[in-house]
Amino acid sequence: MKYIVYLFALLSFTTSCVAQQQTKPVLVIHGGAGTILKSNMTPEKEKAYRQALDEALAAGYAVLTKGGAALDAVEAAIKVLEDNPLFNAGKGAVFTNEGKNEMDASVMDGKTLKAGAVAGVTTIRNPITAARAVMDKSEHVMMAGPGAEKFAAQQGCVIVDPSYFFTQDRWDALQRVKAEDSTKTRLDHDGAKPGASIKQPGNRDSKYGTVGCVALDVHGNLAAGTSTGGMTNKKFGRIGDSPVIGAGTYADNNTCAVSCTGWGEFFIRLVMAKSVSDRMELAHESLDKAATEMIMHKLGQLGGDGGLIAVDRDGNISMPFNTEGMYRAYINADGKKEVLIYR
Amino acid sequence: MKYIVYLFALLSFTTSCVAQQQTKPVLVIHGGAGTILKSNMTPEKEKAYRQALDEALAAGYAVLTKGGAALDAVEAAIKVLEDNPLFNAGKGAVFTNEGKNEMDASVMDGKTLKAGAVAGVTTIRNPITAARAVMDKSEHVMMAGPGAEKFAAQQGCVIVDPSYFFTQDRWDALQRVKAEDSTKTRLDHDGAKPGASIKQPGNRDSKYGTVGCVALDVHGNLAAGTSTGGMTNKKFGRIGDSPVIGAGTYADNNTCAVSCTGWGEFFIRLVMAKSVSDRMELAHESLDKAATEMIMHKLGQLGGDGGLIAVDRDGNISMPFNTEGMYRAYINADGKKEVLIYR
Repeated sequence: MKYIVYLFALLSFTTSCVAQQQTKPVLVIHGGAGTILKSNMTPEKEKAYRQALDEALAAGYAVLTKGGAALDAVEAAIKVLEDNPLFNAGKGAVFTNEGKNEMDASVMDGKTLKAGAVAGVTTIRNPITAARAVMDKSEHVMMAGPGAEKFAAQQGCVIVDPSYFFTQDRWDALQRVKAEDSTKTRLDHDGAKPGASIKQPGNRDSKYGTVGCVALDVHGNLAAGTSTGGMTNKKFGRIGDSPVIGAGTYADNNTCAVSCTGWGEFFIRLVMAKSVSDRMELAHESLDKAATEMIMHKLGQLGGDGGLIAVDRDGNISMPFNTEGMYRAYINADGKKEVLIYR
Repeated sequence: MKYIVYLFALLSFTTSCVAQQQTKPVLVIHGGAGTILKSNMTPEKEKAYRQALDEALAAGYAVLTKGGAALDAVEAAIKVLEDNPLFNAGKGAVFTNEGKNEMDASVMDGKTLKAGAVAGVTTIRNPITAARAVMDKSEHVMMAGPGAEKFAAQQGCVIVDPSYFFTQDRWDALQRVKAEDSTKTRLDHDGAKPGASIKQPGNRDSKYGTVGCVALDVHGNLAAGTSTGGMTNKKFGRIGDSPVIGAGTYADNNTCAVSCTGWGEFFIRLVMAKSVSDRMELAHESLDKAATEMIMHKLGQLGGDGGLIAVDRDGNISMPFNTEGMYRAYINADGKKEVLIYR
C-alpha cells in the first residue's frame, strides 16, 4: 500500500512538472512602425532604441519565466516603453493641437476574452495599467476622458501632473507641424519630415510610435496590449485604433494575440487584430499567413500603412509591416532573442 | 443609319433600366432588445412603438426607392428614431450618474469601408449625423467628447442645449437606479425592474434601447449605423459598443451590413458585427447562420445578451436576439413590410 502511495506521489509530481513545462513562454514587443531608415539614424540613437526595447523585453520575459501570467508580462513590458520618452506612449507622448498629451491604451486576456481600454487620458502615468484596471475592476471595457481618469485614480493608478508627459522633442514637433499647416494633423513618432501630412494620398513619410506587447505564458494563455499618444496636432478628441478592441488589440487563446501600430483609421476600418484572429479560426490560415495577408495586402489596398506583432497559441510569431521599419523585439519559444528596427 | 441610332438608344435605355433595377432595396431597423413582454405592454404603448418604427422605416425606404444611397437611408431612418423619445438615442437618451445625456453613434459604408463615429457627445441633436460628418468630412474615424462636438458644430450639425434631451421618464429611471444602489449601473430602455442590475450574473431583466439601421440600395451598396444613449447611471466616461466599428456597427459590400443592440461590453469583446461579416467571408456561412451563431451561441456562452439586425449583399435579412424581445422592422427585397416587437 505504501509503495502505491509513493507511486501516486511520484506520478503526480511528474505530471505537475510536465504540466508546468507544457508551454514555452514567448514575448514580442513593438515600439511603432514608420519611416525608420538606417540612413536617418545616428549610432547613439539606434543604441538607445535597442537598449529600450531590450529593457522592455527583459521586464516582460521575467514575468513569464517565473510562471507569471501573459497579462502581467504584457503590462510590465508596456510600462517600460511608456516610461521611456523615445516612444509615443506615456512619457514622450506627442502633443495635441491644444498642446496636451492625450493617451489611449487597451489590453485583452485571451483566456477569458475580457478586455479593458482607456481613451483620451491626460493624467495617468501608465495608461496600460488603467486599461488593466478597467478590465479587472469594472464591469466595463472602455472608458474615456476625465471619467476614465477618475476611475483610474480610485483604483490606485499613479496620477501625475500633465506636465510629466512634456518632452522638448515632441513640443518642437508640434510647433513644426502647426507652422507648416494649422489644419494638418499627422501621425508622428519622433518628429516628422517637413511637408509630410496624413492628408496626402500615398503619404509614407509620417512616423508612427505606438507601443505594444503580446505574450504566451507557461499556462498556455495569450494576452495583448497597446498604448499610444496618438497623432501630433490631433484635434477634435480623435481616437485611433489603439484603445479599440478588435482594431489595435485582440487576444483569444483559441487563435492568437495581436497588437497593432500604424495609421489608426485604417486599422479600425479593417478591424485589424480581430481579422487576423478570424482568419486563423475560420479560414484555418497560419498566424503568419493571416497577419501577412492583412498587413501586406488588405492594409495597402485601402491606402494605409503600419504593422503588427502577433503570437499564436503554439508560440509562433509574426511581425509584418509595410513601412520602412518597425521597432520590434522578441524572445521565442526556443529562448532566442532578437531586437530589430529596419526591414 | 437612323435605325442603328434608334437601336443603340433603345439598347442603352434597356441596359440602364436593368442596371437600375439590378438590386432590390432592403431596409431593416431596430429600436433595442431587452425584456420586452406583451404582458408588460399597454395597447397604447405598443401602438406608439409600432408607429415610431413604421415612421423610421418609411423615412429610410423613401430614400432607397428614389435610388438614393444606403448610407443616406440609414441616416434618415436613425434620425427619426433619435428624435423619438421612446428610444434610448438622441431625445430620450438615458441619464448618466452625473445627470447628463452622453450619446454615442457610428456609421459605415460597405462600398468603401469608410466609417465615422462619435462618443460621449452631449449637445448634438442627431449623433448619427455627426458620425456621418466624421466619416465624410474628416480624415478620422472616431471622435469623442467636446472635441467631437466642436467638429460637429463646424460641419453644420444641429447643436442644442443639453436640456433638449431631457425626458421625465428617463430622469425618473435614473433616480430609481440611484436610490436602489448608487454603485450600480444598468442598461436601460425605458425604466428598469427594481433589483435588476448589470452586476448580477445571469441578469436578463435590464432593458436595452440602442437604435440602428442597415440598408441595401439599388446600386448594390450596403451601409450600417447605430446610435445610443448608453446605460442609465453610467459612470467614468464608459463607452459601449455602439460607436465601436467592428463591435456595434460594420458594413462590407462583400458580405453584409450589421447593427447591434444589447449589453455593449460583450459585443465589444466578441467584436460582434465584424465576426458576422468574417464568418460569411472566411467560413462561407450564410448571413443567418453567421448572425444566429454569434447571438444565440457565442454571446450567451460569454454571459451577454442582446441582438442584431443584418442584411447581406443579396438582400437576405437576419434579426436574431436572445432577449425577450427586440423592437425591429423591415422591408425586404420583395417589398414585404413587417414591424415586430416580441419573440
